[in-house]
Amino acid sequence: MYQSNGFHVAVVGVTGAVGTRMLKMLEGSPLPVGKITPLASKRSVGKTVEFGGKEWAIKEAKPEAFESVQIALFSAGGSVSKELAPEAVKRGAVVIDNTSAFRMDKDTPLVVPEVNEKELFNHNGIIANPNCSTIQMVAALEPIRSAYGLSRVIVSTYQAVSGAGVSAIKELNEQTEKFLKGEEITPEILPVKGDKKHYQLAFNAIPQIDLFQPNDYTFEEMKMINETKKIMGDDSIKVSATCVRLPVAISHAESVYIEIDRDDVSSSDIKQLLSEAPGIVLEDDPANQIYPMPLHAIDKKEVFVGRIRKDPDVPNGFHLWIVSDNLLKGAAWNSVQIAESLQKLGLVKA
Amino acid sequence: MYQSNGFHVAVVGVTGAVGTRMLKMLEGSPLPVGKITPLASKRSVGKTVEFGGKEWAIKEAKPEAFESVQIALFSAGGSVSKELAPEAVKRGAVVIDNTSAFRMDKDTPLVVPEVNEKELFNHNGIIANPNCSTIQMVAALEPIRSAYGLSRVIVSTYQAVSGAGVSAIKELNEQTEKFLKGEEITPEILPVKGDKKHYQLAFNAIPQIDLFQPNDYTFEEMKMINETKKIMGDDSIKVSATCVRLPVAISHAESVYIEIDRDDVSSSDIKQLLSEAPGIVLEDDPANQIYPMPLHAIDKKEVFVGRIRKDPDVPNGFHLWIVSDNLLKGAAWNSVQIAESLQKLGLVKA
Repeated sequence: MYQSNGFHVAVVGVTGAVGTRMLKMLEGSPLPVGKITPLASKRSVGKTVEFGGKEWAIKEAKPEAFESVQIALFSAGGSVSKELAPEAVKRGAVVIDNTSAFRMDKDTPLVVPEVNEKELFNHNGIIANPNCSTIQMVAALEPIRSAYGLSRVIVSTYQAVSGAGVSAIKELNEQTEKFLKGEEITPEILPVKGDKKHYQLAFNAIPQIDLFQPNDYTFEEMKMINETKKIMGDDSIKVSATCVRLPVAISHAESVYIEIDRDDVSSSDIKQLLSEAPGIVLEDDPANQIYPMPLHAIDKKEVFVGRIRKDPDVPNGFHLWIVSDNLLKGAAWNSVQIAESLQKLGLVKA
Repeated sequence: MYQSNGFHVAVVGVTGAVGTRMLKMLEGSPLPVGKITPLASKRSVGKTVEFGGKEWAIKEAKPEAFESVQIALFSAGGSVSKELAPEAVKRGAVVIDNTSAFRMDKDTPLVVPEVNEKELFNHNGIIANPNCSTIQMVAALEPIRSAYGLSRVIVSTYQAVSGAGVSAIKELNEQTEKFLKGEEITPEILPVKGDKKHYQLAFNAIPQIDLFQPNDYTFEEMKMINETKKIMGDDSIKVSATCVRLPVAISHAESVYIEIDRDDVSSSDIKQLLSEAPGIVLEDDPANQIYPMPLHAIDKKEVFVGRIRKDPDVPNGFHLWIVSDNLLKGAAWNSVQIAESLQKLGLVKA
């Protein structure tokens, strides 16, 4: 919230799908913000953003822009973070970075506050915000891990285009209109802007998010695998993933299969646990057709969990269906939540 | 194909999404068909269908309509099959039934020709065509099971609306148009016509296909679990499933995780195996962004498999991404393929 003597906060990538929501989340947060420095590329200079009832001029993201900034939220791509996050730190800011640039660095905490808030004490200026699909999954699985132990995760994702940015949302809408009219479609962005081939996503499902790695997993899949282990602080958890892009604008869904360390737990036990977990909303009433769906999660900060069932053949195996707004808990909200935690723990002072 | 001295074939539900494709598949099949009896509900009487360059008048589906019929393909819902399939058998026809009415009956073979064609020898007049999502999965997994043993299957589906019939395809198109125009949407059919609540599928994903069962699995999920074991003839295979409806018109995709009985198999071994398997097309070249997608599988009879990868943490665990036209291999084509097998094995004679 705006409060004249509050923090000086910079938002890098303020015109993007995540950046605009970072401002919105800051506005609704109890974290006192006295000054906003909205940063973007040169071509947005001249525009303004609104915060706390005032207009703030967008400036170009460059090292000097971080003078006197106390908290810097980054969401403008990995290369911008790699170049400018150290510059912000050098000038005294704490950086909360929503790109993959520093996530797997040994000295950078990777934080989902409900799971590993205490890692913030080990930060060296930069705190990494995990990948969107990882955040909602670990937020839902941590209460289970902590109560019953977690030995294995197999996830198949159902991901929205907004994870690929504003231009991808626009492309899906345009493709959909053309498809309904029977007009020709020339895909130019999806599945991955920087890859060689582009495919129609309208009325389709594409099993590629981000670039392929030498092991035939995509980078998105490897993020889910590696980040889950790092956030949970346990390399022995077996994690594997298949990531799929859907013709959905906002909110990722995930079909998650887990094995826990005990055979005597029921799906009711897990439902009970999640109904009391921070940041989680249990939506699990099959008799009344209550289950999470992407469309219902848009603009909500919580992680929605349902379809909890025991594997008929495996006493320690369970299914969960996990849905959350990928731009909020998956990005903007988790970043602002980290800023709130930093203040609460006395790690930043206004 | 049409051949005047060929079989007398009845198609029940001839006006539906599957029924129209059954005629098309019969036309392209080497199975000689001399007479078509197109059957539907009363309200379609008066219309005709084309087959072999001739017009055939649609008749009402009732017991007497099956006089002299040798092969009867049913796809008009479980209740029609329950009432009329025995009547067709009584009059000397072999029934190939594409509903769930008889699938789990002990005396009814449940057949995917690539997997268990020999079960046709045990038929008692009725042969069941499995559920669409089951067919494409077992067709892709059988070569692996037979070479390396199969102990476990965990599947998450990405299913097209055409599995819910012509009216569901229409509803998705109408919802999509309205959504793009910002008009109000009143869902009336999806996810399940006969259930209490209806949800928007356009730009959404709904984790419910068919009705919920007492164990909180949907009927679609239980079909995949039970039918897979029956078709593979092995109750010891652990199978579990999560079935999800997508805003896609035609072709189901599946993220399938399997465990085999050996630790020394590579993903290349599995690719090699599937590249030679009947009815399977391997589309697996990540470096060139080659993988199966629903949009590319439409109107094709094959099952497309790609994204084959070993679980980084589990030496006998593999991922596969399996896509097929749910109305063809998942329904019409598998049914006609069963008819071809019956002729080949001498179990029907023209």
